[in-house]
Amino acid sequence: MANINIKELAQHLKLSKSTVSRAFRGHKDINQETKERILRVAKELNYQPNHHASNLRAQKSKNIAIIVPEIANNFFSQAIDGIETVAKEKGYHLLIYLTADKFESEVAYVNDLYNGRADGIIMSVSGEANDHSYMNKLQEKHIPLVFFDRVYDDIQTAKVTTNDYESSFEATMHLVQAGCKNIAFLVTNKQLSIGKMRMQGYVDALKYAGIPYKDELAVDCSNDFNKNYDILINAFKTLTIDGVFASVERHAFSTYYVCHDLGISIPNQVKVISFSSLEIAPLLNPALTTITQPAYDMGVEAAHLLFKMLADKDEQVNDKVVLASKIIIRNSSR
Amino acid sequence: MANINIKELAQHLKLSKSTVSRAFRGHKDINQETKERILRVAKELNYQPNHHASNLRAQKSKNIAIIVPEIANNFFSQAIDGIETVAKEKGYHLLIYLTADKFESEVAYVNDLYNGRADGIIMSVSGEANDHSYMNKLQEKHIPLVFFDRVYDDIQTAKVTTNDYESSFEATMHLVQAGCKNIAFLVTNKQLSIGKMRMQGYVDALKYAGIPYKDELAVDCSNDFNKNYDILINAFKTLTIDGVFASVERHAFSTYYVCHDLGISIPNQVKVISFSSLEIAPLLNPALTTITQPAYDMGVEAAHLLFKMLADKDEQVNDKVVLASKIIIRNSSR
Repeated sequence: MANINIKELAQHLKLSKSTVSRAFRGHKDINQETKERILRVAKELNYQPNHHASNLRAQKSKNIAIIVPEIANNFFSQAIDGIETVAKEKGYHLLIYLTADKFESEVAYVNDLYNGRADGIIMSVSGEANDHSYMNKLQEKHIPLVFFDRVYDDIQTAKVTTNDYESSFEATMHLVQAGCKNIAFLVTNKQLSIGKMRMQGYVDALKYAGIPYKDELAVDCSNDFNKNYDILINAFKTLTIDGVFASVERHAFSTYYVCHDLGISIPNQVKVISFSSLEIAPLLNPALTTITQPAYDMGVEAAHLLFKMLADKDEQVNDKVVLASKIIIRNSSR
Repeated sequence: MANINIKELAQHLKLSKSTVSRAFRGHKDINQETKERILRVAKELNYQPNHHASNLRAQKSKNIAIIVPEIANNFFSQAIDGIETVAKEKGYHLLIYLTADKFESEVAYVNDLYNGRADGIIMSVSGEANDHSYMNKLQEKHIPLVFFDRVYDDIQTAKVTTNDYESSFEATMHLVQAGCKNIAFLVTNKQLSIGKMRMQGYVDALKYAGIPYKDELAVDCSNDFNKNYDILINAFKTLTIDGVFASVERHAFSTYYVCHDLGISIPNQVKVISFSSLEIAPLLNPALTTITQPAYDMGVEAAHLLFKMLADKDEQVNDKVVLASKIIIRNSSR
């Protein structure tokens, strides 16, 4: 009689794989009756717990992989700082992988991590493609995954984000209340869930304020400084813009350069607000109004979730932690 | 007859250990005559190459450890970016360790890395202590080490730095030529070689310009924002200062906050120049005059040196690469 695997046993028992697995490992949270039933059926069906796999799982690298688009970026470096604080306490080491927003790099890194170099992954996604099925293999391999900030909606796992929709609604309303009627929304990747949420907050706030949404004011920007400069020079020359809501800080910086070069005064002619983790935002000329995400705390939360998953790999952790950003009004929007 | 080790064999031959080792591994750069002499004497003295040790050395983790004071810092995040570019190309992974300038963390990390988790180390030191002998063990373990930016003078290994002395001399002269007579030098750690070099450039430039050096104008600053603010408020209230030369960018930012709060105009009353890797220095109020280190390129160079050492672990690499910083004059010193 061939052995059956844990998945087939669980199906027979009409129980989750995780419950069956925990019963075999003697977890206290499975009641005695269920435990006995599982063991009886397991014997009948000739189920053998896979000790080799358990051993493999127990062999820890004590490494955590962090996959992020870039490191020379205030948000990500502060978030990594937060992850490091928790990891160090737990005696874990950090592996850093930079995708430069390239989907193929992300796939290559994740595939490479199946081999056990890291016990778990904390990731902010590149967001270039729509098929993320390659990530499902991580679950099979019992490598827990936590997304932070930039997430894939179709992958079920723990996620740490900020209240992007509410912040964007509030940021747009702030510009409306400051008298702006033609507010440009600068975005890099409308496809990413984060881009969608921020965009929706902007769209809904305009509607709420009775200002018609104009498609050309939602400007597709670039991560490349020179390309972005050209895109924004063109936008300011061809469109009427009296407010700018930048969904990432680099677009606010480009706006500053462009307005300076075109002789447009901030905040007299154009008011600017931006998502930004720049600590010296008050020192800019003019001081930049920011929606500041708690980057460090997001890193800490993501690490806590990962260690929760590492402590019990059979438990499915789908926690969604949403931290609030803070809007700090400065001279760029006064 | 007892076996002798490679060191004793090398002494007999009056050759370096490295030459003997390379002869056994068939390196092309050892001439045939020498090779034959080595093999003959080795046989006479009953020398057995340690294959076990060679195997151990050959077992690669494909990890590189980066040990830096902090990551939420423009200089270090850009340098790591440079290291990553090279490492990725070579199929290597990056482990990141943050010391927060704590010497005991640095020692703990290095001790932990003796176990082979990483094949090599790239490091910018914490600089708190004077005894760095714990680092010598790395050489015994054949784990190559490259210092960048902040180095220990007493440890012989590859180093990538910038022309700190010349830049500091030039920066001070720039303030002198702009009319400053009471130039404060803001430094965190005078003990670090980098602090010494920058200080010396400042001292020599003053001498060259015929301005007497005043000890109280070399201000010992803190990495803690609040403490630093208090130190600088006190300095500006009690001393005559018409120029500030910040040896690290955070001291320039503190100077901006303090001058703003004391109603001191930059550059009319105080001119400011700073070592800084801040990409948006032109957007500050006023735009900051910077000595910009090629942070990314330093990372690339450090990685190249490490891979050179990894390619031949028996070869002592003591290369010193010195890259030039660039002084960019902006409104803060005009």
